[in-house]
This record gives sequence, C-alpha cells and structure tokens, in this order.
Amino acid sequence: MPQNRKRSQIGAEGENRTRMTLRSADFESAVSTNSTTPAVRGASIKRPMNFCSSCGARVALRIPDGDHLERRVCTACGTVHYENPKLIAGCVPEHDGKILLCRRAIEPRRGYWTIPAGFMENEETLQQAAARECWEEALARVEIGGICAIVHVLHAHQVHVMFCASLAEPAYGVGVESLEVMLCAEADIPWPDIAFPSVAFALRRYLGDRAAGTQGLHFTTIDQRLARA
Amino acid sequence: MPQNRKRSQIGAEGENRTRMTLRSADFESAVSTNSTTPAVRGASIKRPMNFCSSCGARVALRIPDGDHLERRVCTACGTVHYENPKLIAGCVPEHDGKILLCRRAIEPRRGYWTIPAGFMENEETLQQAAARECWEEALARVEIGGICAIVHVLHAHQVHVMFCASLAEPAYGVGVESLEVMLCAEADIPWPDIAFPSVAFALRRYLGDRAAGTQGLHFTTIDQRLARA
Repeated sequence: MPQNRKRSQIGAEGENRTRMTLRSADFESAVSTNSTTPAVRGASIKRPMNFCSSCGARVALRIPDGDHLERRVCTACGTVHYENPKLIAGCVPEHDGKILLCRRAIEPRRGYWTIPAGFMENEETLQQAAARECWEEALARVEIGGICAIVHVLHAHQVHVMFCASLAEPAYGVGVESLEVMLCAEADIPWPDIAFPSVAFALRRYLGDRAAGTQGLHFTTIDQRLARA
Repeated sequence: MPQNRKRSQIGAEGENRTRMTLRSADFESAVSTNSTTPAVRGASIKRPMNFCSSCGARVALRIPDGDHLERRVCTACGTVHYENPKLIAGCVPEHDGKILLCRRAIEPRRGYWTIPAGFMENEETLQQAAARECWEEALARVEIGGICAIVHVLHAHQVHVMFCASLAEPAYGVGVESLEVMLCAEADIPWPDIAFPSVAFALRRYLGDRAAGTQGLHFTTIDQRLARA
C-alpha cells in the first residue's frame, strides 16, 4: 500500500515543498476572465476590490474578529469578502504517441505553446472543465484519464489540475483562443516556447511516466511572490 | 500502467459521473467565510452580488461578447465579475488504526461529526491547507499523504480535496470550531451523524482502501441543484 501511494502521488511530501521560478508568466493576468474570446480575455486585468459587492459601500482591509488574516470588510454592512484560490483545469491530450499542443492567440504568453487549460466554471467537474477547454482551444474531443499534475501557483492564487487524456478520434482544429494547433512528437516539443511553467511541469512528468511505464500524480509549487515584491 | 491508473484514480471515468443526493447540507452556507470563530462563521451567509467591487456602480447579468455564459457585468466600467468554484481542503487523520473526528461547534451542521476540513486560503498549498485545518479544528499536527477523495459539490460551487494523513504524535485537543474531538475506531464511527456527504464519501473510501490494502484517489460528484430549485 505505501508503495502504491508513493508511486501514484509523487511529491506529496517531497517535491511538493520545492519552489520553482522558471518563468515570469502564468494564467494570472487572465485571473478575472473566463471568456473564450481573445480580445475580451487578453484585455482583462484583475481589478482591485474597492467597494462592497453587496451594498456598494467602501471596503477596508481589516482582520475580522476571530480571524487571523486581513480581509476586505465592508465599512457599512460588515460583509467580509473572502478571496480564495481559483482552479485551472487542463489535460495532456495524446494520440498515436503524439501530444496535442496549442499556440496561444491571447495574452498572457500570446504566441507561446500550451496544453489546453483554463478556468474551471461553477457547476462543472474538473474532468468536464478539462474536456471543455480542449474543445474550445483545439476543437478536439478527449477521454479524460487520471490526474497527472497538481501545481500550486502561489503568487497567482491558483491551483492547476492537469489530467492525462487521449483523443477520442484523430480530429482537431484551431479554436478561437489558438493561433495554431498541432499533434507533436516528444522530440519536437518546443520547450523554450512553452507558455507556462505549470504546463512544462505537467508535460515533463507525463512524458517521464510514459517512458517509465508508470502513471503518477505529481505535485509542485511555483512561488514568484518575492520576484513580484 | 493502465492497471495502476485505474487503481490509483478510481472513478475518473465511472463513479465520477454518478450523482449523489445523500444529505441536504455541506459547506455551502459558509461559502463566504474563512473565519475560525464559530460566531462569525455561523453568522455568515453568502451575499448577492449587486455592485461592482471595482467602481461601486450597479452590476447586471449579461453574456459578455464572445462568452457563452451569463456573468455579472458592471453597468459603468464594464468589469466582468467571474465566479468560480472554491476549494475545500481536508484530511482523514489516522493514529493507531483510529480516525480523528471533530464535532462541529458551528453552522452548518453544528453538533454533527466531520473530518478536519475548510476553505483553502490564497498563498498556501492544498497540503498546507489540510494540515492547517486539522490544527485549527483538532489541535493536531499531521503528516499529509496522498489525496484520498475529490468531491465535486456542484450546487455549492465547491471542490473538496481530502487527503490521507497520520498524526505526527498522539496529541490533539478541541479547537475553537469544535465541540468535541475524538480518536474513533472504525466500528464506532457515528455514520448517521456525519456532517457532510463529502466527508462520508472520503471516510468510506479511505476505510475501504485500508481494508483492501490499496490506496486510491476516488472521485465523485454531488449535485443537489434540482433539490434546491
């Protein structure tokens, strides 16, 4: 049992505690948008929270009674506006030994390559979100398998959950968020042009597992808070 | 490899699609609070979004250009306020064959039993969140292991991630959110008084795996949208 646990969820106590500072970009500048339109998504920037979304009065940073962290609290109605990490769902879609990659038509990292991934919506499962993103970005229907990687992107307040996947049929196209989509042999993966460190992590672990004949759930943490301070 | 995948992430293509309607309550009525104080947490109710948190003007439900879902959009500055699922992190803490359970001092489900779990904060990992909740609710230090269960709670817009865990030492106490904390033998688990269906699911799968000498990642989906309509 411990053997199986270690193989299937690698890094829960080891790699999980490493800190990576591979690249400067991730999904963070799209943090306030789920839109599928490049113009809308690229134009969106996370706005500061100044007002209470319930009553419209000003908010102030305070530590609520009994809490230990500063929150945005309404100065009129007292509503505490908690902010929590957002989920990104994606997949590594394989067909005939090749991986489906999309070249981004939107910022951040326009022109760089990614696996299909994006913000999870309310009222869908992680698997449904991953499959939906693959359809939107690459017009490809996938069978979603096990989780390949979970990446904590601390500075962006995001958790990226990347699944193994296989194309249901060898059909794909260029979705509205993509400039280009390709089925790519391992040797041809454009590593210097991969858009996000979480994507590079998921791809490397997926391919490493494939080569080793295993399949694990790999954790890592990316923390660029110091770089941004 | 497929063998391992099936065993380690059970339900990714099967159980995942079932729909459970076990109980009427989950963390949803605490959706807008991360507070550790019973009075604060119990009193908090999710408030409707009426105003733009950026500029303070009214919001309206609209489908933004290029999107396909209704969003709350500011009628003055145009900011789109996306709403996404929140993460709950928890663990099944074991010591000497027994499970650490907490009787809730707060609503929802005050007086019912749970494993330690709560809203994930920004700038922490899932493992850190699960360990923190165990400390806050049961004053127990745990070693976090692999993920035992992922539960999509569709109607509450939540994803519950429950880890295997073991007490670092046989020490625990009654945290501020708990009325009572116990190390409980499997035969003594108060199943009719378990607070949430996701907790019952994680416990049953954890104990089933333990009995079988395996350790898997189990998915399920809980959907009470129809019950609430």
